[in-house]
Amino acid sequence: MTVLGLGAMGRALAEAALAAGHPTIVWNRSAGKADDLVARGAVRAATVTEAVRAAPVVIACVLDYPVLRDLLTPAAGELAGRALVNLTNGTPDDARRTGEWVAGHGGDYLDGGIMAVPQMIGRPGALILYSGSREVFDRHRAVLDVLAESDHLGADAGLAALYDLAMLGGMYGMFAGARHAAALVATVGGDPVRFVEQRLVPWLTALLPVLPSTAEADDPADSSVAMQRVAIANIIRASREQGLSGDLLAHLLAPIAPPADPRITEDVLRLADRTAG
Amino acid sequence: MTVLGLGAMGRALAEAALAAGHPTIVWNRSAGKADDLVARGAVRAATVTEAVRAAPVVIACVLDYPVLRDLLTPAAGELAGRALVNLTNGTPDDARRTGEWVAGHGGDYLDGGIMAVPQMIGRPGALILYSGSREVFDRHRAVLDVLAESDHLGADAGLAALYDLAMLGGMYGMFAGARHAAALVATVGGDPVRFVEQRLVPWLTALLPVLPSTAEADDPADSSVAMQRVAIANIIRASREQGLSGDLLAHLLAPIAPPADPRITEDVLRLADRTAG
Ligand SMILES: NC(=O)c1ccc[n+]([C@@H]2O[C@H](COP(=O)([O-])OP(=O)(O)OC[C@H]3O[C@@H](n4cnc5c(N)ncnc54)[C@H](OP(=O)(O)O)[C@@H]3O)[C@@H](O)[C@H]2O)c1
Ligand SMILES: NC(=O)c1ccc[n+]([C@@H]2O[C@H](COP(=O)([O-])OP(=O)(O)OC[C@H]3O[C@@H](n4cnc5c(N)ncnc54)[C@H](OP(=O)(O)O)[C@@H]3O)[C@@H](O)[C@H]2O)c1
Repeated sequence: MTVLGLGAMGRALAEAALAAGHPTIVWNRSAGKADDLVARGAVRAATVTEAVRAAPVVIACVLDYPVLRDLLTPAAGELAGRALVNLTNGTPDDARRTGEWVAGHGGDYLDGGIMAVPQMIGRPGALILYSGSREVFDRHRAVLDVLAESDHLGADAGLAALYDLAMLGGMYGMFAGARHAAALVATVGGDPVRFVEQRLVPWLTALLPVLPSTAEADDPADSSVAMQRVAIANIIRASREQGLSGDLLAHLLAPIAPPADPRITEDVLRLADRTAG
Repeated sequence: MTVLGLGAMGRALAEAALAAGHPTIVWNRSAGKADDLVARGAVRAATVTEAVRAAPVVIACVLDYPVLRDLLTPAAGELAGRALVNLTNGTPDDARRTGEWVAGHGGDYLDGGIMAVPQMIGRPGALILYSGSREVFDRHRAVLDVLAESDHLGADAGLAALYDLAMLGGMYGMFAGARHAAALVATVGGDPVRFVEQRLVPWLTALLPVLPSTAEADDPADSSVAMQRVAIANIIRASREQGLSGDLLAHLLAPIAPPADPRITEDVLRLADRTAG
């Protein structure tokens, strides 16, 4: 297989392919990142076009879609009869549009979302979600299974990105809560890393079994909503009293925001624009 | 012991005391909520004053501090020589001020934060964080241990509230992420509860070991920051493309907000004011 992109993740993918004994062709903008892989048997391609031409399955794993497009455009003529397996993070629409573009050049397309950090690749526990043609997935499954457990979600190429982004969004919620909790404890001299390790992780572990029941919006008639509003107002008050920066508090708003309050939506979207911008 | 407040949590506390064979005096605004506890051996007090007078340890667990103050003010004369153990959610300052007020009436004060849902009280896994005088805690520890595992954090009465709110803040981050993830999956027809159960919970479980390392702000020089900004921008874009309400996105801002950007702080605090009212 060919691996385009040897960042933290691309290198882990190439290493897993090599370790499984697959012929592995690699390309990276900064060519030096391929040196040790080449020493272990990978073949360095001089250009993306050469890399695509060299194998029936091309794995792409770069920073974002604009980079991906710039890399693939000159190599479009080589896509016919090959499968592009794109593991670059993007939106469902990004995935669908890229799939159509590849099909327009006679190639097959699978989109994937990697649910793992690089150290997990090729080891039990790593999962890659795929979407696109089931037939293409089945044809290449043996080689994909070398990278991680493979899970095909459906023919709509956008599904893997959607589930990937949903799960990443879930992760960032947990991270936002932990960062805020640790900052609050640090204001009274507590060690933030030890606090998360010894108190927060056991607490969140105890709560994981109830997480599915929180997936849907609260029934506002539920009496515990009043209790929750008090607790959240107390968290916000205490965070201000302790002098914490307001940007640590954003994750608290979800359970108390009236679901369709347009002013809140506006505020959050302005925030999103400022920060993700 | 006396239990003031028989909401979902107060009733669980009174039940655990009864189950352990402790003489248990109960009071609740809606008196009928005591009926079944009385049938099982609890003594109903007609007034808060009578309830406080009836036992050396008084557990208070009501909706909020304004309610607590209204209840205790007429009974202040009975506090001398007793310990008030306040398990009502509040801020560190609320706790310290109440401790001073109780001391001013000759009573002892412990503040507590309950890290459990009512069903866990009196069972392994339930934890109550305490702060205030260590000597008072040690004197009453045997009876407190009947309710949950007891952990004394320090003499500053505000510590239990601070750690409690920090851990609740961590919980709300995880909940906010799950709610957003589930909403995103629902837009493509996925079952949100099954998704959280079968995909999100295993993913968050796999991530818990790295949570301590996320407790501190990212090093902006770390190359993975660029990768994270792309992923978060993709989550926000996809959520908009799928028509999700912006208030589901707030938890995404923490890792990308420049820590001390005053405009962001302002936006979040305005949001907090609107929603926590
Ligand atoms: N790391 C993780 O934990 C993780 C987990 C799940 C999914 N992913 C996904 O995997 C993908 C890659 O992430 P990563 O961790 O490998 O990121 P990374 O370490 O930052 O690597 C980025 C890659 O993109 C290349 N690149 C950036 N700009 C380029 C340009 N203008 N032209 C050509 N190449 C360019 C880099 O080439 P140079 O080496 O020349 O800079 C490098 O190969 C992302 O979509 C990410 O969301 C990563
Ligand atoms: N439930 C949980 O999962 C949980 C977990 C940890 C900590 N806590 C904490 O435990 C405390 C109590 O929560 P809860 O779940 O028991 O809440 P709840 O079920 O809503 O009960 C609220 C209690 O406050 C009383 N109350 C409300 N307004 C009052 C007023 N104006 N005058 C007199 N009494 C009044 C209620 O009396 P009536 O019965 O007469 O309405 C009831 O006893 C809160 O601070 C909460 O944060 C709860």
